[in-house]
Amino acid sequence: MPPSRANRFLCHSNQPVPLTIVVPQGCRVAGVHCGVKRDKAKLDLTLVVSDPPAVAVGVYTQNRVFAAPVALDRSRTPAVDVRTVVVNSGNANACTGQRGFADAQEMARAAAAACGADEKQALVMSTGVIGAFLPMDKILSGIRQAGQALDNSDNALVAAARGMMTTDTVQKIAGGQLNVAGKTAQITGLAKGAAMIGPHMATMLGLILTDVALEVAGAQEMLRDVVDQTFNCISVEGHMSTNDSVLLLANGAAAGEPLSGGDLSTFRDALTQTCGELARAIAADGEGITHLVTLDVEGCATFAAARQIARTVANSLLVKTAVAGADPNWGRIVSAAGYAGIEFDPAGVDLSINDFLLYQSGAPKDFDAAQVSASIRENRDTHIVLRFSEGDAKVRFWTTDLTAEYVRLNADYHT
Amino acid sequence: MPPSRANRFLCHSNQPVPLTIVVPQGCRVAGVHCGVKRDKAKLDLTLVVSDPPAVAVGVYTQNRVFAAPVALDRSRTPAVDVRTVVVNSGNANACTGQRGFADAQEMARAAAAACGADEKQALVMSTGVIGAFLPMDKILSGIRQAGQALDNSDNALVAAARGMMTTDTVQKIAGGQLNVAGKTAQITGLAKGAAMIGPHMATMLGLILTDVALEVAGAQEMLRDVVDQTFNCISVEGHMSTNDSVLLLANGAAAGEPLSGGDLSTFRDALTQTCGELARAIAADGEGITHLVTLDVEGCATFAAARQIARTVANSLLVKTAVAGADPNWGRIVSAAGYAGIEFDPAGVDLSINDFLLYQSGAPKDFDAAQVSASIRENRDTHIVLRFSEGDAKVRFWTTDLTAEYVRLNADYHT
Repeated sequence: MPPSRANRFLCHSNQPVPLTIVVPQGCRVAGVHCGVKRDKAKLDLTLVVSDPPAVAVGVYTQNRVFAAPVALDRSRTPAVDVRTVVVNSGNANACTGQRGFADAQEMARAAAAACGADEKQALVMSTGVIGAFLPMDKILSGIRQAGQALDNSDNALVAAARGMMTTDTVQKIAGGQLNVAGKTAQITGLAKGAAMIGPHMATMLGLILTDVALEVAGAQEMLRDVVDQTFNCISVEGHMSTNDSVLLLANGAAAGEPLSGGDLSTFRDALTQTCGELARAIAADGEGITHLVTLDVEGCATFAAARQIARTVANSLLVKTAVAGADPNWGRIVSAAGYAGIEFDPAGVDLSINDFLLYQSGAPKDFDAAQVSASIRENRDTHIVLRFSEGDAKVRFWTTDLTAEYVRLNADYHT
Repeated sequence: MPPSRANRFLCHSNQPVPLTIVVPQGCRVAGVHCGVKRDKAKLDLTLVVSDPPAVAVGVYTQNRVFAAPVALDRSRTPAVDVRTVVVNSGNANACTGQRGFADAQEMARAAAAACGADEKQALVMSTGVIGAFLPMDKILSGIRQAGQALDNSDNALVAAARGMMTTDTVQKIAGGQLNVAGKTAQITGLAKGAAMIGPHMATMLGLILTDVALEVAGAQEMLRDVVDQTFNCISVEGHMSTNDSVLLLANGAAAGEPLSGGDLSTFRDALTQTCGELARAIAADGEGITHLVTLDVEGCATFAAARQIARTVANSLLVKTAVAGADPNWGRIVSAAGYAGIEFDPAGVDLSINDFLLYQSGAPKDFDAAQVSASIRENRDTHIVLRFSEGDAKVRFWTTDLTAEYVRLNADYHT
């Protein structure tokens, strides 16, 4: 089994980690089972340590109801000296009030102790059931255990990715090498989140580690922009969770001077590609899903307008069920675009599905419906291009179909 | 079978029209089969005539992609001399360009001819498949046939309501008598629209007839406000159609002086109740639906804020599937409220389902989950109350659950 030499590569279960995705210099990681999840085969706690203090920036859920770890990390980022991030899965520590916040603080304190850092140098992420208190004895014992297991091996990296998983069917790791400032540096991202977002578990988490150095203010702005173009361009059912977080840690272990100019652009491209791959992997990961839809919205006045239209189309149940049924139902797509709240000239709209042009200049085209339907039915990937005549802005958005199986899984009573 | 004496009453199939719901004075109506629908047992064309010219106002879809009849009616309302409205079902005349607009004009011309009016005195509504041209020979022959059948009988009223139906399983008629200006007057509303909005048929239409007289400017404002509080407070899958329209015709045949003061308030209440009953009937009408959800959002700063939160909760797939599964999953409801884009204090939120208090002051309550689940499972009506501490504004919103059956029906390939 020769490992892939691709510079960017997404790891699925049971595949070897490609040579170019490694734990960045100065970092050690671990994933363990501590008992938040009942199934002992499932990991539920991840510890990530950067031995050199790292610049750390975060982008968090916009939900007014946000979880304790989000409150804690918001108060501690942007920062220039973060040493560790602890993540637990199986319990979101959301809607848990003051006690939940104290628990998040205690998790941070224990993670800091496990790597000899100050408690303020630790960040926390949680994902899982809402409204239940963390089993702190298990969590603290898990952090101690993970502290013993910290390593920079491929196995540790996979374990760290698996410790974040809830309903995910595959771990999600992306990244690669980049040449900046005459050095070879690394960017490696871990994420959790599944198209089939399960009961009480509607969370996506992302954790990006790199051994380049970044200025903290620029890093914050860059992460916000990149998240906007990647993780904020996926939608499964439009439900924004209480825990969604993306953290970026940059420790400078491979290249100590903060990047600028062309090197900074190179890094930004690598960050965009890493986050993009993780975002696509989240959309693609779903048991009840039969299609991953790539939706290109083009010819808009602004990026925000394009994304608003894309999100509205992506969230339309009528569009999602049409894709599930291999129904080339352009009327549902065009009418969903029409209620996105964005002005456009209806006579300037073109639509194609899987390269079949169905609608042109605001009027239906003759097409072989059976042929288009077959192309949807026979491929897991569906490609929709919706083109307007308002400008040059565009977005690529990922979503999924909606199947009866999705509803069955999400309607299962959880107790 | 003694007819109900209730002053307001919603007619379902196979029930007699109650005595208090009659065709208003000065009006005649008809519903016929003209062949847009293949099934000869189904009516597909409705003609409504007011012999005295009526004040006519309309509220239309906000979708940027709107159908030809919407374009025509927008250009002709508000008006003070409308004589007729023609409605066809089975074909929406949407996304049909210039030819579609010419067809809508021709429908209006034929309806006017059928009652001896000028063509500008006619309005048009269409509902059904998007993107196909109207079979004008059938439509024109249907209008002539309906012109012969015009009548003010109960049977004609039911036929008129049935001529508007697409995937509806019951016709929708509401209204009653009111005493204004020392006279007994009538308000009668017809609507179509079904919770299970079918492929290509995501439309709601409403047509309200009254024999009171109204000032045109006040009538327009009143209809907009009432629609905002009734038809705009239902949501099945959040898809706004290309054809949604509500028309109000007031001909003054029972009371000739435009209403004012207390009489106007009396009429406004009757209009609100009529539209509210029709709106609830639309939400309740669905084959794939197992629950009608009444969602009360209270304690908000403004009505708009309350409705935005209600709509966001109502459109959440995770909330809808939880109701289908009788899962008292308060976390999904609270977190959906949190991403509605409305500021609120999370510590001031209470939530109850079917009178069981599950969440209070931003924290979960202990409750017997099996008991709450049973109360959801055993009743078709689910009542959710979500209370904030921001003010006194509130809204009552109707929505439905989401079942696997819904997805199966909407994923069926349509050709």
